[in-house]
Amino acid sequence: MKHVCVAITARPSYSRVRSALTAMQADPGIRLSVVCSGSALLDRYGRVVDNIRADGFDVVEELYTFVEGGELVNMAATTANTISGTAQTLTRLKPDYVVSIADRYETIGTAIAASYCGFPLVHVQGGEVTGNIDERVRHAVTKLSDLHMVANEEAARRVRQLGEHPDTIHVTGCPSLDIVDDAMAGPLSEVQQAVDTQGVGAHVDLSEPFIVLLQHPETDSHGASYERMCITLHALDSIGLPVLVFWPNVDAGSDATSKAIRVVRENGLMTRARYNKNLDGRIFLRLLKEACCLLGNSSVGVRECSLMGVPVVNIGDRQIGRARGANVRDTVWDQEVIATAVREQITHGRYPADYLYGDGGAGARIARILSAGPVLTSKRFQDA
Amino acid sequence: MKHVCVAITARPSYSRVRSALTAMQADPGIRLSVVCSGSALLDRYGRVVDNIRADGFDVVEELYTFVEGGELVNMAATTANTISGTAQTLTRLKPDYVVSIADRYETIGTAIAASYCGFPLVHVQGGEVTGNIDERVRHAVTKLSDLHMVANEEAARRVRQLGEHPDTIHVTGCPSLDIVDDAMAGPLSEVQQAVDTQGVGAHVDLSEPFIVLLQHPETDSHGASYERMCITLHALDSIGLPVLVFWPNVDAGSDATSKAIRVVRENGLMTRARYNKNLDGRIFLRLLKEACCLLGNSSVGVRECSLMGVPVVNIGDRQIGRARGANVRDTVWDQEVIATAVREQITHGRYPADYLYGDGGAGARIARILSAGPVLTSKRFQDA
Amino acid sequence: MKHVCVAITARPSYSRVRSALTAMQADPGIRLSVVCSGSALLDRYGRVVDNIRADGFDVVEELYTFVEGGELVNMAATTANTISGTAQTLTRLKPDYVVSIADRYETIGTAIAASYCGFPLVHVQGGEVTGNIDERVRHAVTKLSDLHMVANEEAARRVRQLGEHPDTIHVTGCPSLDIVDDAMAGPLSEVQQAVDTQGVGAHVDLSEPFIVLLQHPETDSHGASYERMCITLHALDSIGLPVLVFWPNVDAGSDATSKAIRVVRENGLMTRARYNKNLDGRIFLRLLKEACCLLGNSSVGVRECSLMGVPVVNIGDRQIGRARGANVRDTVWDQEVIATAVREQITHGRYPADYLYGDGGAGARIARILSAGPVLTSKRFQDA
Amino acid sequence: MKHVCVAITARPSYSRVRSALTAMQADPGIRLSVVCSGSALLDRYGRVVDNIRADGFDVVEELYTFVEGGELVNMAATTANTISGTAQTLTRLKPDYVVSIADRYETIGTAIAASYCGFPLVHVQGGEVTGNIDERVRHAVTKLSDLHMVANEEAARRVRQLGEHPDTIHVTGCPSLDIVDDAMAGPLSEVQQAVDTQGVGAHVDLSEPFIVLLQHPETDSHGASYERMCITLHALDSIGLPVLVFWPNVDAGSDATSKAIRVVRENGLMTRARYNKNLDGRIFLRLLKEACCLLGNSSVGVRECSLMGVPVVNIGDRQIGRARGANVRDTVWDQEVIATAVREQITHGRYPADYLYGDGGAGARIARILSAGPVLTSKRFQDA
Repeated sequence: MKHVCVAITARPSYSRVRSALTAMQADPGIRLSVVCSGSALLDRYGRVVDNIRADGFDVVEELYTFVEGGELVNMAATTANTISGTAQTLTRLKPDYVVSIADRYETIGTAIAASYCGFPLVHVQGGEVTGNIDERVRHAVTKLSDLHMVANEEAARRVRQLGEHPDTIHVTGCPSLDIVDDAMAGPLSEVQQAVDTQGVGAHVDLSEPFIVLLQHPETDSHGASYERMCITLHALDSIGLPVLVFWPNVDAGSDATSKAIRVVRENGLMTRARYNKNLDGRIFLRLLKEACCLLGNSSVGVRECSLMGVPVVNIGDRQIGRARGANVRDTVWDQEVIATAVREQITHGRYPADYLYGDGGAGARIARILSAGPVLTSKRFQDA
Repeated sequence: MKHVCVAITARPSYSRVRSALTAMQADPGIRLSVVCSGSALLDRYGRVVDNIRADGFDVVEELYTFVEGGELVNMAATTANTISGTAQTLTRLKPDYVVSIADRYETIGTAIAASYCGFPLVHVQGGEVTGNIDERVRHAVTKLSDLHMVANEEAARRVRQLGEHPDTIHVTGCPSLDIVDDAMAGPLSEVQQAVDTQGVGAHVDLSEPFIVLLQHPETDSHGASYERMCITLHALDSIGLPVLVFWPNVDAGSDATSKAIRVVRENGLMTRARYNKNLDGRIFLRLLKEACCLLGNSSVGVRECSLMGVPVVNIGDRQIGRARGANVRDTVWDQEVIATAVREQITHGRYPADYLYGDGGAGARIARILSAGPVLTSKRFQDA
Repeated sequence: MKHVCVAITARPSYSRVRSALTAMQADPGIRLSVVCSGSALLDRYGRVVDNIRADGFDVVEELYTFVEGGELVNMAATTANTISGTAQTLTRLKPDYVVSIADRYETIGTAIAASYCGFPLVHVQGGEVTGNIDERVRHAVTKLSDLHMVANEEAARRVRQLGEHPDTIHVTGCPSLDIVDDAMAGPLSEVQQAVDTQGVGAHVDLSEPFIVLLQHPETDSHGASYERMCITLHALDSIGLPVLVFWPNVDAGSDATSKAIRVVRENGLMTRARYNKNLDGRIFLRLLKEACCLLGNSSVGVRECSLMGVPVVNIGDRQIGRARGANVRDTVWDQEVIATAVREQITHGRYPADYLYGDGGAGARIARILSAGPVLTSKRFQDA
Repeated sequence: MKHVCVAITARPSYSRVRSALTAMQADPGIRLSVVCSGSALLDRYGRVVDNIRADGFDVVEELYTFVEGGELVNMAATTANTISGTAQTLTRLKPDYVVSIADRYETIGTAIAASYCGFPLVHVQGGEVTGNIDERVRHAVTKLSDLHMVANEEAARRVRQLGEHPDTIHVTGCPSLDIVDDAMAGPLSEVQQAVDTQGVGAHVDLSEPFIVLLQHPETDSHGASYERMCITLHALDSIGLPVLVFWPNVDAGSDATSKAIRVVRENGLMTRARYNKNLDGRIFLRLLKEACCLLGNSSVGVRECSLMGVPVVNIGDRQIGRARGANVRDTVWDQEVIATAVREQITHGRYPADYLYGDGGAGARIARILSAGPVLTSKRFQDA
């Protein structure tokens, strides 16, 4: 019996590994514990911890680690809290594996806690590139990790280049795509109801054409967050279609982004917009399937939307260097350029599916590997 | 004018960069600030912060970050404190560069603080391999860093393999070796006085043959620290020569090591041993020059002693994978094997100098590079 | 020259001591430093630190201490951060006096930092009673303090009862009331503009009758916060007058309160309400002067409104035990009872002024005492 | 069934409540959990957590909170860690009562964690006076507490004066004295063995006259710690009797005290001294019973020694204001004065027992009260 402890620090991290959690829960060789921290506990970000419990997983500790304030120093302080809280919790739990997810800044806290306290660290979604602080974090976590569950061969190649031993690298696909098929089969009425009851602003009829906006601050230049959100919102206003706007995540710069949303709203623009907190991941994907276009800079545009064939306009540098399919149009922060790209994507319509990031079986593969319980030996740099 | 902030978290880190600090202090294009934390502030480890001030450097903040206790969880907690304290301090200082040194576990705290808060991070001594948690830390710090000052071409090659841009990698040599020539020219009487006044135990006459012992706990298997120190001390006891024993550093396991020293001492063994806290680095090198043999697992054996030609017996895995010269004999944790190796090294005597880790000009090169102030652009992974 | 360091952790704390800061700034015998932390730095609570700087005071450090999340454990975590951050800052500043204000939970962090680090601690507004965790904090801070600046003779008597030496207790009046006269003389147009530009919701014409609502969660029973806010809002809805609603402070329970405001708003009640973040204190008082009635549980109702003669309906236990004038009607959490009390207060209209909490000269008195620099001797419990 | 959580932060705190823990363990109406932190976990201070487990108590969490370094700022940092760690633990345990002990600086961390998180706080040994930072802490903890278990009527009177409700104050006696009778009946041979095996230095024959030294730094003037320890040691050297020296506790200033012991030892004074870490409390009391005189400033001199009739010379201000019996001679920090007082106490010999601090039944009383589970109502200041 392997005791696997998964650290969830934010809603998108849960979405990324839910299928792996489900597969682990079903595996008789695994005992699963979830530790939640960061924005996963916060009302402002939809308290995904409640969803995790509702989904039947055992959340064994809640660590309030998030130091409020939109400054860079707060990312450092939150990471520090993640280390100390997670280390204390792991020392009590004594798991066989600790799972850390992707590249959010605070996940390096999980990685340090596990590796310093001597618990084998499993990293999901290593080896990808994004071109900002997230990428530094991602590769640093790789160097602290013992096992690597990567999305595709390109990612595996980078993890090998980073000096990790090939035996520790598993191309599982990305578990976040495991739910796409299932999500796309869901009823649209469920999505309509979620949007109607949870959001504020104009009513949006999902059977008519609409756009989805999901724009996060860029952490390397977060001072520009307010201005950039204004550019995007003005571009959207010029299109005239209804828009479902989703609040950004909790990185430095998110307060400024929220402010832009408020100001534009109070200035009488975007009158056909509805403003939503995060939806359940499955429902959000079903919504995207219906959208004429996803606008913003979320990784969902290059990842899930690639498999779903949703037209995407991706703005700025946040997804730079990340592999993408034909469905993605990249633009700069310019109102006219953005508006034109959105119009062209609306005209184009749906794209064919692309298997860049996985085939739907990643979660099951991750569970099988951990259940088998690979023997870890002392780690050494592998010269190329 | 570039404002360079150097974070010193322990005595050996200071020894490693002192020549670079001296060169920066003398450079009109650089304003130098030192931030001290961790064991650099602790009496038990000789409070190197007082030496730093006495050497004329501006220590602008003292951060008490060290959470006492010999458990692994304490390394995590201390690292967390290093992040939050350093981030707060850097946000106040707003330096142009932050310098982080080598591979101690808490230095990743400096690296996270600087990189998350947006200050360009300079890493000294990246690209080397050691084979335990230190190595994970070292490479993770490389991935968080903007500039790399490495010891030799082998290290540079590894940093490039890690995906860093070649323009950001500078082969400067290791600044810790800059003091070797100067140190070797010092009078032995100064060393004799330091040992006599600071240590406890038997008197050791440095004009007669003697051995130096410097053994740190291995952080990957620190549970064995007590037993291993006992093995070493019993081996030394069988040799019969006077021994200068130095207290280990502050990693997990150091309490156990200290205990072994106490117990052996109280059991009437090692009657010709003298026990010392850390000496000033320059005096310590002068002492090593005189020693018949250095025993233990310190990096000084493979690095400085290589340049000085001092016979070294290196035990266990702590220096594994690190380049070494002809002066080093590697052994396992076995009393007989160790005793035999020490006897053979005593018989062999001094070795010729080897320039594996530098030629004495590293500090000046580092200062010149930072004074010139390279323009940093957003960092991206360099595919091989 | 006395160096006085004032720790501001929240907007209301600044309002309470602004006149004392002004007087200290003007005193040639005092050098004034302000350290800001907690919600004083947060956008959600109006970032009073920006106001403090705009008012000409020297904010020497910003400490992000606020751990987000509406649970009780977060109050403890925020207090812990306040201690460590403030202690580090005070050790650097070495002030002659540290000033801590009133009774917010995190202010005990200032008190511990100052008293443990050996800096004389000055407490403003000790000796009052409120009947919940705030009161525990207030009296605990008294026991950690060296000097006491109290509002009235009743407060002084309690501080003496607590065993403090009479020579250390100064009846200065409460500095928060120093601005009342000045504030009441301000133009209403300025208030109208502030409300119009900063709030959201219905337009409220301040030249017509209106009500002000300022309701904080009760920290001893914060689970009921959502329900209680609903009761109050339904009571107000039944009155039919326009209402200016102010968002609650940052205590545990505030998320629930905010949620109630959102839900009621989305349910179509309170259609004549306008929702505001905190206003500048002076403008808020000018607004209160105009209000038919202040409803809620804020201390401003028993304190400033007493001097201004504004009719107040005070709900629940938050102000229990606190001295109050004829202008205050106390009620329980019952929709009908509240609605009736509000109607009766509206019918009654303005009350005559009452000098219960001060005469307008408290700030000047506090500055004079600190400038004179009383000699503090080692503190001992004074038996009654 | 009441769940009682006792927070132990240091060895002396355990000695003080052990009899209460034993009585709670035996009470079918109580489930007992112990949380250990601070120096209770540290090798340097004898890791009392191991004794607690060996005594059969359930230690449910170990919190490494102690930030090393002899500066005042470290007391603040350690207290901050105590708050955050304890709050997290209590939130998980959800006890019916939390017990905080006496007046050590970090115990206010326990008090804040419990009271802020809504767990009823029981304070043992409130209402006593000592005249330094400890006293501030003690009374501040009283103001945060819900129940008070005090040593005698004088302490009860002070807690009432502090505004606590008489129904919440219980005169139980001090549980630390419960073990005195039992301890005094133990065999001297056990003590001789403990001293012989654990200490270093000269052999001391306990059947011959000897002195015990236990001197802590005074936290209000810890800069003088080194000098004061030197004074005491020189005074003792002039007496000529064997001395058992015990290392001081972990307060600010303890490094300096330790240094004085080392220096005097290395200077060839105190040749008949033996140096010991802390002994088990019971054995230490048995040792004191045999001593000609206890010298220093420990509370054991005024408390336990009063009941045992041991002659005590108490130096300085640390015990000022604390009730004491005829067995205590108070002196200032002067070598001659101290030496004379010690000689006179040796000449005088044993004193009769005095019941100032309890009769041996305190622990059982405390367990009974908590088992009965008093109903706590919201706390209010009781005007005198």
